[in-house]
Amino acid sequence: MSVTRRRLIHLVGRAGGISAAYRTMAAMGLLAAPAAYAGPPALPAGSGAGSKVLILGAGIAGMVAALELGRAGYDCTVLEARGRAGGRNWSLRASDVVEETGGRQPVAWDAGEHLYFNPGPARLPYDHQGILGYCRELGVALEVLCNDNRAAFMHDDAAFAGAPQRNGAVVNDTRGYIAELAAKAVDAGLLDQPVSDIDKERLRAFLRAFGALEADLVYRGSARAGLAELPGAGTQSGRIAAPLDLRAIVASEFWQGPMQFGELHTMQATMLQPVGGMGRIGEAFGRMLGERIVYRREITDIRRTGEARGARVLWRDARSGERGAAEADYVICTLPCPVLRGIDADFSPALRAALAAPAYVPAGKIAFQAERRFWEQDHNIYGGISWTSRDITQIWYPTAGLHAPKGILVAGYVWSDREGEAFAAKPPARRAADALADAAHIHPGCAQALGNAVSVAWPNIPFTGSAWAEWSRATRKQYYPVLLAGEGPFLFAGEHVSYVTGWQEGAVLSAHVAVAALAERVRRAGAPARASP
Amino acid sequence: MSVTRRRLIHLVGRAGGISAAYRTMAAMGLLAAPAAYAGPPALPAGSGAGSKVLILGAGIAGMVAALELGRAGYDCTVLEARGRAGGRNWSLRASDVVEETGGRQPVAWDAGEHLYFNPGPARLPYDHQGILGYCRELGVALEVLCNDNRAAFMHDDAAFAGAPQRNGAVVNDTRGYIAELAAKAVDAGLLDQPVSDIDKERLRAFLRAFGALEADLVYRGSARAGLAELPGAGTQSGRIAAPLDLRAIVASEFWQGPMQFGELHTMQATMLQPVGGMGRIGEAFGRMLGERIVYRREITDIRRTGEARGARVLWRDARSGERGAAEADYVICTLPCPVLRGIDADFSPALRAALAAPAYVPAGKIAFQAERRFWEQDHNIYGGISWTSRDITQIWYPTAGLHAPKGILVAGYVWSDREGEAFAAKPPARRAADALADAAHIHPGCAQALGNAVSVAWPNIPFTGSAWAEWSRATRKQYYPVLLAGEGPFLFAGEHVSYVTGWQEGAVLSAHVAVAALAERVRRAGAPARASP
Repeated sequence: MSVTRRRLIHLVGRAGGISAAYRTMAAMGLLAAPAAYAGPPALPAGSGAGSKVLILGAGIAGMVAALELGRAGYDCTVLEARGRAGGRNWSLRASDVVEETGGRQPVAWDAGEHLYFNPGPARLPYDHQGILGYCRELGVALEVLCNDNRAAFMHDDAAFAGAPQRNGAVVNDTRGYIAELAAKAVDAGLLDQPVSDIDKERLRAFLRAFGALEADLVYRGSARAGLAELPGAGTQSGRIAAPLDLRAIVASEFWQGPMQFGELHTMQATMLQPVGGMGRIGEAFGRMLGERIVYRREITDIRRTGEARGARVLWRDARSGERGAAEADYVICTLPCPVLRGIDADFSPALRAALAAPAYVPAGKIAFQAERRFWEQDHNIYGGISWTSRDITQIWYPTAGLHAPKGILVAGYVWSDREGEAFAAKPPARRAADALADAAHIHPGCAQALGNAVSVAWPNIPFTGSAWAEWSRATRKQYYPVLLAGEGPFLFAGEHVSYVTGWQEGAVLSAHVAVAALAERVRRAGAPARASP
Repeated sequence: MSVTRRRLIHLVGRAGGISAAYRTMAAMGLLAAPAAYAGPPALPAGSGAGSKVLILGAGIAGMVAALELGRAGYDCTVLEARGRAGGRNWSLRASDVVEETGGRQPVAWDAGEHLYFNPGPARLPYDHQGILGYCRELGVALEVLCNDNRAAFMHDDAAFAGAPQRNGAVVNDTRGYIAELAAKAVDAGLLDQPVSDIDKERLRAFLRAFGALEADLVYRGSARAGLAELPGAGTQSGRIAAPLDLRAIVASEFWQGPMQFGELHTMQATMLQPVGGMGRIGEAFGRMLGERIVYRREITDIRRTGEARGARVLWRDARSGERGAAEADYVICTLPCPVLRGIDADFSPALRAALAAPAYVPAGKIAFQAERRFWEQDHNIYGGISWTSRDITQIWYPTAGLHAPKGILVAGYVWSDREGEAFAAKPPARRAADALADAAHIHPGCAQALGNAVSVAWPNIPFTGSAWAEWSRATRKQYYPVLLAGEGPFLFAGEHVSYVTGWQEGAVLSAHVAVAALAERVRRAGAPARASP
């Protein structure tokens, strides 16, 4: 904030009071509120006429680029290795097939709008207005996804003797104990500047409210954390449960993720999902782009035919054995780095190094068809996630099809290197058996209700090769700018070319940046031509 | 816990370790988990044959009673004053009419599955398995309702110079500051028994995780509380917002409700709602009961014709002027106390005193059709509630119809005596003007997008008379048992005859208790008759 701004606010404050000063600050953008989403780059109508662009990959980034460039008159073609649009945006349903490098898994589930499994992205945070904006435009219906559910469980083999605890008990007993500790600090006069002048009684009331403390500022449990008997009718007045032992909570790994998970910026309410599965987004893009996407085009070679402009791409159709080539002025590569690394390409050593730089997360998920929604019927769990110290890490309860007879339960979502690689190394039947054994620690006997497992280990999925990119501070600094700059006729997009890696939002925003960069190149290339008729 | 139980657990623990002891405790029901919902009372098939029951009121309690008694062969008739089933379970849609004692309000909204307003109950907590069980049985489709939304606002005229603050900033900055205070207590060695032996370093790590503290255990803001710039693509790496001033948070009224609202037992995730409006439940009950409900039957007199059995009820149809009488062995009265108090009835003075005892909440709501969902488009608010110190108290954003062009916005929900009575005293046009003025403090200019207000002040609604009952500790002790016991042929049900007042769950469970009590009377009355043939 410059001195001039400060002085202005001070003067406004003196003249009009703090309220006026506040409004002035808001008007000057000095209050904490992110700038509204600007939308896709506004390219002049017809500005792309005469420019031909090849887009590699019909995932979210590639399809966003094709849509936006198409609006401006570019001649775009998307080459996609698979027979479907979406890439990692994917919902598996009855009669689909998962093809991993190790083998095929047919999806032997019942048909049903709610009987789907999102092996890739499964959440749309409220602030991800890039991807949400396309949902609005493409008419993809949304619904609220419960992400953090107080009725779900946290389980740690090494805490509470391995007995699963309710999320609401862990979260709210923790709030109580921490508020009680904070009250001790207030009593002991440990408040520093600049808050040492806060009225102590009001601060105590604030801590009581935060933690559900009793009048003596001690936490002895609360209805927020759970009830041993629910209030009902007749003589059933309800009874608060005894609180969990703070020592046991601190000894657990609950606070190393699960306990504040729902407060993380990308995990907070409101979380959204497309009605019918995340794959509805990719499908809608695919329908809109129609023949602008050419399927079964696995890229084998990326060639440069000009300095700043001109490229040739070679492809093959693994099914038919057909091979061919496509040419364009520019190429937007949205293939993930693990795939790009294996393609014969006219990339500089610096660019190759950049593509080799980001680490990739070997995530995987496994889902079962449940013949009975035991989590709803036995535990009042409607959506959300249970956490466990066991390898499966999480159990996701479907928000779709509430109260339906059956459901698809994600009984394992792994993303750490150790669990992810171990998961990918197992044959599907073994993944299923191990997941059921792990899940039984939260839901004893659940294997009886769960059948027909379908698992996806992203490192084994052709044309993707891993789940998502992670830049370290060092690689972000050294290599990310290289990818971002592109090279000659080549530009790059995808979640890996963003600060929102692992999210569809990163794919969308990176495509916007690539589209704007391409348009700028065309504008510059075109200007001299128009200047010398 | 008896000594015998303790000894057993101790012995199991010595023999099998703490895990075995834990499992034993769980098996003995000693762990904090409420008993699973028992379902409606199991009445023997045909046990009601020959018994005639009148049920007064086709709200949730009355219809549950009719359904359950009907299953056991009772001859039930429900008398309902209105022309529709549901009572306070009610969704207003295009072409409906609100009739208050003061006048009529036609609902001049567009037609649309998502364009509804629930003037009465609007939430189904996950633990309310009574009402949720009927949703399952009656095929009422459910969806997740976002109740506590980190993107919504808190506004207090007397704090932050009246500038609305994001829920997520208030909640997460508070967590940070309180964790920081708690860390000071740890540093100062203020831990009491029995937690004084917790490893201090682990406790500090726990507090850091809870509050998003920095390594020095100081809170300086976090992405959880909000971003001044969202991370994106290109060079947009994101920037954390400066935290709110703790003094201002403590000075606000945010912590006197809004801040921990989402942690209250009945407000926690997962919150549910019927697809298409809460009224779908009442409508489904009405369809299932069919002609067992007789509409337009306003009760004027309740007479007793026998000691324990035998009653006559007089009614009138206010539209046609028709009057009539109905007779039965038993009567279940589910009318709210404010209505029952006005009916000429053969009730004892003690019963009259009990009906006069509970206080009633004069709640009201107002909704507008929004021509543009500005809360979604401008603020990324998808469902949830904003709070304000102004009279409207709350703004509810619809979870239904996300991304649709239009929506129904509840721009005022009042329930305190002061605001509720003032609301009821105003004509509808004045309520609308005042609500828009209040809402503008959170959404400046919102009046441009909001039209066609519809308001419901429950004290003015005939056949209901107020929103819900509240028992004080004293009235609960003295009068609730009188209502619960019933009198002669009369039994009572409704949310007011429960420990879950103000919730449909109370209506359901009270009906179950009344049904079981009635069946027990019939069983006792029938036994001697069968013993002396």
